[in-house]
Amino acid sequence: METLTIIKIGGKLLNDELALNQVVTSFSKIKKPKILVHGGGKRASELCLKLGLEPQMNEGRRITDQATLEVVTMVYAGLINKKLVSLLQNFDCNAIGVSGADGNLIHAQKRPSRKMDYGFVGDVKNINTTLLTNFLKKGITPVFCAITHDGNGQLLNTNADTIASALAIALSDYFEVDLKFCFEKEGVLADPTDDKSVFPVLSKVDYALHQQKGTISEGMIPKLDNAFDAKKAKVNKVMICGVYGILDQKGTEICL
Amino acid sequence: METLTIIKIGGKLLNDELALNQVVTSFSKIKKPKILVHGGGKRASELCLKLGLEPQMNEGRRITDQATLEVVTMVYAGLINKKLVSLLQNFDCNAIGVSGADGNLIHAQKRPSRKMDYGFVGDVKNINTTLLTNFLKKGITPVFCAITHDGNGQLLNTNADTIASALAIALSDYFEVDLKFCFEKEGVLADPTDDKSVFPVLSKVDYALHQQKGTISEGMIPKLDNAFDAKKAKVNKVMICGVYGILDQKGTEICL
Repeated sequence: METLTIIKIGGKLLNDELALNQVVTSFSKIKKPKILVHGGGKRASELCLKLGLEPQMNEGRRITDQATLEVVTMVYAGLINKKLVSLLQNFDCNAIGVSGADGNLIHAQKRPSRKMDYGFVGDVKNINTTLLTNFLKKGITPVFCAITHDGNGQLLNTNADTIASALAIALSDYFEVDLKFCFEKEGVLADPTDDKSVFPVLSKVDYALHQQKGTISEGMIPKLDNAFDAKKAKVNKVMICGVYGILDQKGTEICL
Repeated sequence: METLTIIKIGGKLLNDELALNQVVTSFSKIKKPKILVHGGGKRASELCLKLGLEPQMNEGRRITDQATLEVVTMVYAGLINKKLVSLLQNFDCNAIGVSGADGNLIHAQKRPSRKMDYGFVGDVKNINTTLLTNFLKKGITPVFCAITHDGNGQLLNTNADTIASALAIALSDYFEVDLKFCFEKEGVLADPTDDKSVFPVLSKVDYALHQQKGTISEGMIPKLDNAFDAKKAKVNKVMICGVYGILDQKGTEICL
């Protein structure tokens, strides 16, 4: 099977012009089929504050009311998505920016409110692999923002790590998928205060151990949960890495 | 040749939930290939004001500095585009929301500053008809926002009427194109104070006459210039109409 690289970028990378240009340059150099998935939470929080909306978070996940949904749709699907697409076009990468609503690419369902009501937050239900593989075979590179829809006219906010993971799992039927979660560190750190303490490999057992010890915490937990979900579900290779990890194999490899 | 309907919606239609639902319902009923093009200037102006940016206009055209470009990208490509796409998906219309940067669908060039510097405003240079006809043949409905790019990583703000007209002209090589500029009135009015005074037909000569008299003015002028450009350039049928004109032939037909 042909290789498909799925890169998820997020965190401070999206707010740092220099880092963003590095991401786009490296990503556009990947010759084989590729998909970019991006977050944008920090920019969304900034805009929320400017508009007098207090960002609400629970365990690293955003609580999305109607006004916040409008802000994240503007920032993710508008500002960041189109900026990335235009930068990629400049590097001869024929990118197409999409949300899950576009071409019905990601059908989600509103998360039921049990212990916690996250508002307009969607859990991925189905991926339109037909249209996606069609794009990839034509040399078109999808750039996904973290917005999905429920098929009944409702847009939903969905974690970008989860989208990357769900795409990787669904497309593993057609490609040998390399999934890379790329952020401002070079990988998962054994010591959060030491940027050089990157785990070359992280197993499920070690992950559980470090979660107990508290060395791995907060924002890393949903990211790693998504990474392990993908690895468990037949995705060829899953990495947590920095910008340099986009083209080489630097970073933390996830193993079971 | 097969018929292609291109509907441009703008003005107050986008700010009125009821009218917007009528637009989406009617548009989704068009069985043959179709494209939707939308503006969003009023919503963009509202967000500009909330963020302390004073909207600047000249002869019905927006002057776009860097901060305003970010706002229009958010509102057009994010908020309005994704809302329309999700509403259309609900009516089983497989819409895909795009800017000109996506799939390099509309390549524009920054307008040279002669008498007036419009800032990051783009004039349409080239349309990627290959990818567009490919979408249309697959039953995918493109929904265009009024953002284009210059191919060098710069997004540009482009008048939505101009985009609709340019798409109609470029696609007339492949389809018999019906182009409809749809707004809050039922057509071009002979008397701006009387909503019932719709011209059934408007010729170039009558247009020039009414411009001189001042009955046709302001926002209608760029719209009508685009309509006449399209009619001159082999587009099958060009109409200025209201919501009811989407499915029937009500409104003002443009003739040379």
